[in-house]
Order: sequence, then C-alpha cells, then structure tokens
Amino acid sequence: MQTKRPQDTFIVMSELVLPNDTNTLGNLMGGRLMHWMDIAAAIASQKHCNCPVVTASVDNVSFALPIKLGNLLTIEAKLTRSFNTSMEVYLRVWGEDLSAQYKYLSNEAYMTFVALDPNGRPRKVPDLVPETDLEQKMYDGALRRRQLRLILGGKMKAEDAGELRALFIKE
Amino acid sequence: MQTKRPQDTFIVMSELVLPNDTNTLGNLMGGRLMHWMDIAAAIASQKHCNCPVVTASVDNVSFALPIKLGNLLTIEAKLTRSFNTSMEVYLRVWGEDLSAQYKYLSNEAYMTFVALDPNGRPRKVPDLVPETDLEQKMYDGALRRRQLRLILGGKMKAEDAGELRALFIKE
Amino acid sequence: MQTKRPQDTFIVMSELVLPNDTNTLGNLMGGRLMHWMDIAAAIASQKHCNCPVVTASVDNVSFALPIKLGNLLTIEAKLTRSFNTSMEVYLRVWGEDLSAQYKYLSNEAYMTFVALDPNGRPRKVPDLVPETDLEQKMYDGALRRRQLRLILGGKMKAEDAGELRALFIKE
Amino acid sequence: MQTKRPQDTFIVMSELVLPNDTNTLGNLMGGRLMHWMDIAAAIASQKHCNCPVVTASVDNVSFALPIKLGNLLTIEAKLTRSFNTSMEVYLRVWGEDLSAQYKYLSNEAYMTFVALDPNGRPRKVPDLVPETDLEQKMYDGALRRRQLRLILGGKMKAEDAGELRALFIKE
Amino acid sequence: MQTKRPQDTFIVMSELVLPNDTNTLGNLMGGRLMHWMDIAAAIASQKHCNCPVVTASVDNVSFALPIKLGNLLTIEAKLTRSFNTSMEVYLRVWGEDLSAQYKYLSNEAYMTFVALDPNGRPRKVPDLVPETDLEQKMYDGALRRRQLRLILGGKMKAEDAGELRALFIKE
Amino acid sequence: MQTKRPQDTFIVMSELVLPNDTNTLGNLMGGRLMHWMDIAAAIASQKHCNCPVVTASVDNVSFALPIKLGNLLTIEAKLTRSFNTSMEVYLRVWGEDLSAQYKYLSNEAYMTFVALDPNGRPRKVPDLVPETDLEQKMYDGALRRRQLRLILGGKMKAEDAGELRALFIKE
Repeated sequence: MQTKRPQDTFIVMSELVLPNDTNTLGNLMGGRLMHWMDIAAAIASQKHCNCPVVTASVDNVSFALPIKLGNLLTIEAKLTRSFNTSMEVYLRVWGEDLSAQYKYLSNEAYMTFVALDPNGRPRKVPDLVPETDLEQKMYDGALRRRQLRLILGGKMKAEDAGELRALFIKE
Repeated sequence: MQTKRPQDTFIVMSELVLPNDTNTLGNLMGGRLMHWMDIAAAIASQKHCNCPVVTASVDNVSFALPIKLGNLLTIEAKLTRSFNTSMEVYLRVWGEDLSAQYKYLSNEAYMTFVALDPNGRPRKVPDLVPETDLEQKMYDGALRRRQLRLILGGKMKAEDAGELRALFIKE
Repeated sequence: MQTKRPQDTFIVMSELVLPNDTNTLGNLMGGRLMHWMDIAAAIASQKHCNCPVVTASVDNVSFALPIKLGNLLTIEAKLTRSFNTSMEVYLRVWGEDLSAQYKYLSNEAYMTFVALDPNGRPRKVPDLVPETDLEQKMYDGALRRRQLRLILGGKMKAEDAGELRALFIKE
Repeated sequence: MQTKRPQDTFIVMSELVLPNDTNTLGNLMGGRLMHWMDIAAAIASQKHCNCPVVTASVDNVSFALPIKLGNLLTIEAKLTRSFNTSMEVYLRVWGEDLSAQYKYLSNEAYMTFVALDPNGRPRKVPDLVPETDLEQKMYDGALRRRQLRLILGGKMKAEDAGELRALFIKE
Repeated sequence: MQTKRPQDTFIVMSELVLPNDTNTLGNLMGGRLMHWMDIAAAIASQKHCNCPVVTASVDNVSFALPIKLGNLLTIEAKLTRSFNTSMEVYLRVWGEDLSAQYKYLSNEAYMTFVALDPNGRPRKVPDLVPETDLEQKMYDGALRRRQLRLILGGKMKAEDAGELRALFIKE
Repeated sequence: MQTKRPQDTFIVMSELVLPNDTNTLGNLMGGRLMHWMDIAAAIASQKHCNCPVVTASVDNVSFALPIKLGNLLTIEAKLTRSFNTSMEVYLRVWGEDLSAQYKYLSNEAYMTFVALDPNGRPRKVPDLVPETDLEQKMYDGALRRRQLRLILGGKMKAEDAGELRALFIKE
C-alpha cells in the first residue's frame, strides 16, 4: 500500500449560499454548512484511501461570523494523519461577500472518517507522510485530538491520555 | 422575563432516510444527519427564547452505527442550560429499521445557539430551571462543557478551567 | 401476528418552514404540507405493519390557516384502525410562530396505506386494538369513512353504505 | 372582470420520477405526487384569477397503480367552476413507462384554491363559463362536491345538502 | 422499427420559479433553467426511442429576458430529426407573469441525445418523419447544426462541412 | 476601475454525484451538470466584476463520457475576456472514480455573463489582462466565439464575421 502526501488529498469546494440554505434572518444555517463540510471531508478521505468512507466523528466546531445569503462559501479540506482504518481531516471554511470584496475565515474543524471494504467493514488505509512543517505539526497534534475524542466519547480515561495531559497541566 | 423548564423546550423530529441522504453504500451521510440535528436544536432553542437563533458551536459528535436507507430517524432535543445570550441543547438520535423492528441509539450531541434581536445582535434569554435529577446533572455539566469549548476555541487557558480540571487531574 | 395499540404507532414530526416550501406570499404551499403528512403517515403505518407501505388514499383535507415562512410545523400521526391489508391513519397538523408564541391547529386528515410484501403485493397486517374512548370512537368511525371512500371512488353504491347512511338521513 | 373559459386555465406538467421521489420499493411516494398536483392546480388557478392563490382543500384522492422510478408523470389541470373567491380545479394524473410504451391513468382529484389580494385576504375571481358538455357537467357537479366538502369539514349539516342528497337517497 | 412523427415526441413542462431557483436579484438562474430543459428534452427523446437516453450536446443558448421569482415557466420540446443512434430536440421556453398577464419567449435551444441499450451502449433509434413545412425545415436544418457541432467539437474540419458552408460564404 | 488577471477569477468546485443527480442508468444527468457549471461560472464572473451577474449564453457543450453515481466532479472556471458589460468564462469539468483512481476530462465549455447594477441593468466591468500564453490565446479566441454567438443568435450576418471567417475558409 503506497504512502500518500497531505497535498494528494487536498480539495476545494465552492458553494453559493442560496435561499433554502438560510434561516429567517438570511444567514446560512449551521447544519447546512456542516453538511457541505462533511461532503468535502469525505472527498478528501476518499482521495486518500480510494474506497468508500463513513463519518466517524466531528470535533468541536465554533461558528464565529454569520455567512449571508448570496455569499460565496469556500471549503478547503486536507488529511492531517491516517491511523489504522481511520483518517483525520482538517477543514477551513471562508465566507466571501463578492460585491463588497470582503473575505473572512468562518471556522475550522477536524473530522474523522473510517475506510470501508465492499462489505461495509473497516479496512486498512495507506500511511500519510507530512511534508511541510505545518503538516508535521498537524500530524503530531492528531494524536492529542484523538485522545480527546476517546475521552469525550467515554472510551478512554483522562489520566491515561498522556499526549493530552500537557494541555491541561503545567508541569 | 419568565423562566422556563427543560421540558418546555423539548422537541421530537422524525425523518425517513431517502436515497439522496445516503452515500454509495446506502448509509446516511454524517453531514445530512448534522443538518437535521441543527434544525432540531434550533427549534428547541427558539422554543426557549422565542426569537431567531444562530448556531454558535457543535461539540464533539461520534457516529457509532451506520443508519441505512429507508430507516426511520428520530431526533430528540432539549435545552440543558441557558447562559446570558446563549443556550446549550442536548440531542439524542435513534435509528430504527421498522421492518426488522430494531431500534438503536445512533449518537448524542451538545450544540449551542445564540439568541438574536431583530438587528441580528445577541439578546438576553430567559433562565432555564431544571426539574428532574437528570436535568440538574446536565445543567451542572453545562459549565464544564462550556469551559472545554472555550479552551478548544482558544478563548480560555486550560489552567483557568476550574470545572474542567477535575476531569483531567486526580487530586 | 401480534395485535398492536394505537399508541404503538404514534409519531411526531417537526419541520421548519423554509423559503423553498413557500409561495410568493410567504405561506407554506399546501402540496409541501401534504408531502410531509404523507411521510408522517407512512411512518405510523410502518410502525404498525413492520413492512413497506404505499399510500392508497387521502381523505378530504381543508387548510384553514396559512402557515408562514419560519414557522414550526408539528405533525402527529396515529393509526385509527387496520383492515385486512390496509391501515387508516389520523393526522393533526399544528403551525406555530415561535417568536409570537402563537400555536394553532392547521388541519386534520385521514390517510390510508396498504402493506406490501417483498414482491410489492398487499399483505395482511396485525389487528389494532383501541384503548381509550377517543381511540374507540375513531376506530368505529373508520368503517364509515371507508364506505365514503369507496363511494367517492366509484367502488360502492351509496345505498349500500349502511354505516354512512346515518350521516345523510335523519331516520 | 372578464369571464374565462376552462381551456384558458388548462395546464400540462411533466415530471420524471427521480430516486428521491420514491420509497424503498422504488415507487413514487404519494406525498410527492400531491406536491406536484398542488403546484399544477395552483398554476391553473392563477391562470384564472391572475393573482396569488392558496390551497383551500383537497378532495378524496385514491392512488390506484404505483408509479415506478424513471417513469414519466403527466399532470393535467383545468378549472371546473369558480365561486365567489374560490376556484375548483380538476386534475388527472398519468404514469408512463416510456421503454415499455405503457401509459396508465394513475388518479384523478379535485382541489380548491382561494384567490388572495396583496394583503393576503380573499378577493373576488372572474366567472368561469363552461363550453363543452363535459365542462358543463363538471361545472354542475362542483356544487355537489362543495356541499360534501362543507359537510366533511363540519361547516354544513348533511340534511341541508340538497344537491348531495340525491347521491345517497333513492327518492 | 416503426417510424415516428415529431408530434409523437412533443412534450410540455410547466414549473413555478421558487426561491431556491433564483439568484440574489430574484431572477431564475440560467443553470436551473438548463436543468429543466435537459429533463424536458430527455423525455421527448425517450418518447421517440422508448429507451434510456443520455445528453450528448447542447447547442448555443442565449438568455434574452430574465425570468422572475413566482413566474410560470413553460418548456416545449419536440424532436426535429433522428440520426443513427442520436436525436436532435428543439426546445422553446416561455416565462409568464400570471398576475400581470404577460407572457414572453425566454429562449430557444437545440439539444442532442444518444439512445442507450441496457448495457449503456448506443443503440439504433427509429426514423423521424416530418409532417408540416416547419417540421421539414427543422429536419433539413438538423444536418447543418450537426456539422457545426462536429466542427466546434473538433471532430470535423470546417472545409468539409458542405451544408454549413453556405452559412458563411456567399457563393 | 482596476484591471484584473484571469487567475483572480479562478475557481474550483467539487461535487459528489448523488442519487438524485442521476438518470435510471446511474449516470449524471446533463442538466444537473450544466446547473453546477452555471454556478461555478457565475462565481468566476462575480469575482471579476464584484456585482450580481446573469447568464447571457452558453456555447456548444458536448458530453463525451458519462459520469457515474458516487464519482467526484471537479469544475474549474476562469475568465478569458471581459467585454463592455459582459464576461466570457472558460470551464473544464473532470469526472473521477476515486476507488478506481481513474480521472477523465468530461467536457469543456464557454459561458458568458452580464454584470448588473442594483437596478438590474447592465453595468461596465473591469478589463481583464491575460498573463500566460494560453490566457492570451483564449483572450484572442474570445472575439471569434463572440461573433459565432451573434451569428447563431441571429444578431450578426455571417459575412460580417471577419474573425470567424478564417475558420471556414482557406484563403
């Protein structure tokens, strides 16, 4: 199984915010945005494993600025690390008012996907080899985020999360 | 401003998983589910504040079991706590294969919403008064989850998160 | 085949009225509402027979009050009676302006569904056993409504409709 | 206000049954069909009154034959009679398997619409003048169907329904 | 294989322009219109060949007048000529403001479709026999448009396009 | 009004082909693809003029290879030339089977858009200054394509189309 680079999995998605995507104040609904983010992240994962994938988890997402009707939405997704059968994807989302020439970072997120074989069971994925410093940093952080997911999902005790511990304790 | 009880904000949403909601393996796409969860949680929030709301954040969500095409999806949403201008909503999602008479918990999640005035600026929301033991427990936990959100969003230092600290350190 | 109770088939569906659901006056289109009602009633039927179903008929539906954009729609569906291979479902629809805290009954309706076997042919469904007085009353009325359907569909002569006759003739 | 003829209001609508319009057996869902019928009838009504309209009621609809995925759906709608502020529309729906060259009448229905002024209040509509024998017959029958609607909606007593009485009593 | 007449393939499609079909100025988006035109033309083609079809090409389309939200859209499609395995369809699109009683030709277009056998390979289609003068003229012009398509698609040299040559050179 | 470069208008759009986008053979419908192409091209145009735009025309489009359900669709759009109030956009569309690691050029197209002022009237757009050889070549070809559009739309006589003439006549 051939290793891949983060940039092999990179994908850009552009969407115009249409009326049905908005609430009564004319802002993009958070759930509609997460729907698009999920599709973008699924594509990035599929570019890595070349097989069907299923969403395993979404990390904390904060929505800073409302995105208005008619704005352009740009979603960038790229793998940060692959584990045995799962992959972590990093997403960045921009809103852009093309008439006002105003572009802003809307939010960032991490999502994880599991690769599936034709019977729908998890299958092994290729290794991901980071190239740039930033990619290496994100690769390293993936372990910590994975521990946090396991703790929040009740599958790991906090005191066993060595990687994460540093976040909370000045030693 | 009159206080409200969690059950005043309770809402049930039912959806059938249709072809366009699924990936090529016939499983509900995670993003489509999050779209529905966002709408359910927005309704629960609006029942509390009686005004427009906007999604502020989604906490970690794990998807345990795939939900199949044709299955029934049931989403329950209820407020756990209201803060100054924001509200935390707790969601539970069940999948159900009606032919096989098999119902399973798909996932749980916490989402927060901000109440908006007619100009789109945050406005004060009523207090939420828990009634049952479970509601009280969720009310108490809301503070801890709020700290975690602030830390993960880079707006609070981990060492200032008193409530959360207990989770990570055996003292 | 085990009998079921009406409450075993009860289902609640909640929807927000979005821009594409409305006409140019900002009111929910009747057809969009019937689409949702059909899905709610199909779910109630499937909860009873645990098999695929197909819409057989919709009784007269009147739309009293327009439902506005952004309003919350709540549909409740419950079986009233099962026949050999078909089931009658009773639906109630509420609109609700969450900001104005104003909730109103939009309309009621009866729909019938036929249970299908894997080859798409009608199959027998379990008996439904009413429990409350209201459920018993609806159970009894189901025969009368069935006769009216057969007459309106040209499959029964009016003079043979003993149950229905009482409606039109004071004897 | 100029009178109109039924054929001035005639409209044909064609739709292909796509995956999302079907249930898990690959048949068009009844509610999706009613959605399309509502749009077709609304267009016929607007061609008559040249103003916005709102669905007032749908008469009993029976679905005889399932319509399959990929089939062509043809809906014809035409006014039968106008009352003071409302209009009755007659619809016929055909399914067609274009590969098998098999076309079949799926169902017929009557729907009524109310004309609205710019403030959303009912407004007067032009008279409809039937031309053919069939149109005259449908025009006459409209009174009877209107009485049935009023009785079924609880707004008229059965014994006051002179037109309808003949249907149920051999005198 | 039985020949067919253009009118055997004639189809009318009616759509109301809903919010999600429009851009931020409230005009129907060109791509949404092309989506509907493609479906209408596919139906006309299927009425001719009685088999699945796939879009092969769309000729130049100009959009003269914007179509507004709430307007009625009428698309008429009819075959002009069949070739070995492909068919050319002529489409006309009208917009109509039903309140203002104003109807206008929005645009015309030619699209070609290829007939497919169950394995997805091109299959022979019946001959089309024009009846009226206009149909004959369109039948003749189809050869010229076909040459232009081949040239524009880089599959024919301009100097070999005998039929088309007359368009560009006064001889 | 500041000039812009083609790359300032460049945009990438990625979409997964979902069930409702396909015909009964599981291939992406041509009209759905054109819908997406229109949105991508509208975004590229808006990035150039920073104002609302409306589709003016679509040049001949040929669909070479069918795009299958579940495939990834990538659309790239970039301005080739701006005229007084209109802009020509060049689009390339790829299909990609991520499991089979097979990517193919589906089709290319040229679309033109008109820039609109707040009253919906055409307004002047900035000049576009090509940088690379390929961009210059496309810039030059835009004049020829414009003449062809005018001839095909009946607004220019073929013999006046100096630029285009060379295509058809060896002199």
